[in-house]
Amino acid sequence: MKLLRYGPRGAEKPGVLDAAGQIRDLSGIVGDISGEVLTRLGDLKHLDVEGLPLVEGNPRLGACVGGTGKFICIGLNYSDHAAETGAKVPPEPIIFMKATSAICGPHDPILIPRGSVKTDWEVELGVVIGKAAKYVTEADALNHVAGYCVINDVSERAFQTERSGQWTKGKSCDNFGQTGPWLVTTDEVADPQDLKMWLTVNGKTMQDGSTKTMVYGVAHLVSYLSQFFTLHPGDIISTGTPPGVGLGMKPPTFLKAGDVVELGIEGLGNQRQVCVQD
Amino acid sequence: MKLLRYGPRGAEKPGVLDAAGQIRDLSGIVGDISGEVLTRLGDLKHLDVEGLPLVEGNPRLGACVGGTGKFICIGLNYSDHAAETGAKVPPEPIIFMKATSAICGPHDPILIPRGSVKTDWEVELGVVIGKAAKYVTEADALNHVAGYCVINDVSERAFQTERSGQWTKGKSCDNFGQTGPWLVTTDEVADPQDLKMWLTVNGKTMQDGSTKTMVYGVAHLVSYLSQFFTLHPGDIISTGTPPGVGLGMKPPTFLKAGDVVELGIEGLGNQRQVCVQD
Repeated sequence: MKLLRYGPRGAEKPGVLDAAGQIRDLSGIVGDISGEVLTRLGDLKHLDVEGLPLVEGNPRLGACVGGTGKFICIGLNYSDHAAETGAKVPPEPIIFMKATSAICGPHDPILIPRGSVKTDWEVELGVVIGKAAKYVTEADALNHVAGYCVINDVSERAFQTERSGQWTKGKSCDNFGQTGPWLVTTDEVADPQDLKMWLTVNGKTMQDGSTKTMVYGVAHLVSYLSQFFTLHPGDIISTGTPPGVGLGMKPPTFLKAGDVVELGIEGLGNQRQVCVQD
Repeated sequence: MKLLRYGPRGAEKPGVLDAAGQIRDLSGIVGDISGEVLTRLGDLKHLDVEGLPLVEGNPRLGACVGGTGKFICIGLNYSDHAAETGAKVPPEPIIFMKATSAICGPHDPILIPRGSVKTDWEVELGVVIGKAAKYVTEADALNHVAGYCVINDVSERAFQTERSGQWTKGKSCDNFGQTGPWLVTTDEVADPQDLKMWLTVNGKTMQDGSTKTMVYGVAHLVSYLSQFFTLHPGDIISTGTPPGVGLGMKPPTFLKAGDVVELGIEGLGNQRQVCVQD
């Protein structure tokens, strides 16, 4: 299933994509694509999607999951991206948090913060937790995943690394976490470690990679993180980005108002954002 | 007012302390001490607290604020604490995130994570946001604060600094953020930069400081953070710890199962935690 949330920001309704790619209203079945609903997605498998009300028009899409408690990111998790930023692959996953207030819809604008001159892009595979996970093994880890989505881990490089310690400052700005368009349930993703991913800026390909080159795979990450804290339904793990970010270009190239960023992952849909000065 | 939340974890009800220090049930007036309720605490000022139902017995206290979206911490924000850890005072605030899933009640146990040998304590002044703040000035900043509380920023030092980059890993474990007992509204805190604070382990004083020696004060921090992202009602800023953490002792000393940690801040109440192996 391709689950989604549509409507005005903060008032999104749950929906599901039908076979023709149209949005069907799920609000008669579940309250939201969030929390406890994620623990029982199996119940929706036999749903007559075509029998649900068709959503007319072309509504805004919100983040494909609501009520996220933790927005956890993995740093330098593609060996070739680590190389382009001049960093070594870490001996175990680097984790950092993005503020959940950065989460927005897949086509919501990238807001360039006041004073920013180094706003950058990062296409990433997002993993949405479907069942609480604490001290789980790698073998059991994928049973705790509800599905996958596209994430743009928008990053301000000066805020991230030139403004006193810890990356979160450059990772948490408003609209720095486009999430969606869909939460694609695990049954539709044969192998999360074999998905093509790409990103363009103004039509020019910047990132063209695959989750194949991820250093620490999804099962490892879920298990690893669960050794530190409980992962709850709706938590998102953004698993790192392949090469091709602006910081790694020669010379480094960053986003400016008016730029158009498009990105996608095989089977998980596409995003399109216009950059706007905040 | 001293606002609080009482009852079983995940099902806390709102309450308020009366003049005799007893808990009164606020659930007939507000749904929770969270989000939108924090934007209109002024409405509660003329409440007849003694007329509210008395809560019998001795219920568990939850975190004094619910629905927290961001749990933001300030690193090395006391000059003497920076010195004890061998670090310099940073040229601007260091910020990092604790997982909101770490938030728990003021007397809930400190869970020592599996594999931990360096679980440490940190008494901190918590600032609870009451009104959304984006690009606010330092002069206006305190108008966005709902109140203050005690926080134990429990930290696993090996996870924090010896397990590949970024502190969040050692800051986000379950029950690593005791919050409360009360959210003390701003009208009862004459000067947030002049509050005594203390922490004992098994009755021995470890931290004995004052918010006077904070490097970046509350107004500065709220304004500063709001340059990076919107602060929302219910967000918590934990403003750093004075000297006396286990890491700074000679030799370094850490918590073990059975240890009892007590801490408090002048006018904001006390916490008491027993350490338990997770």
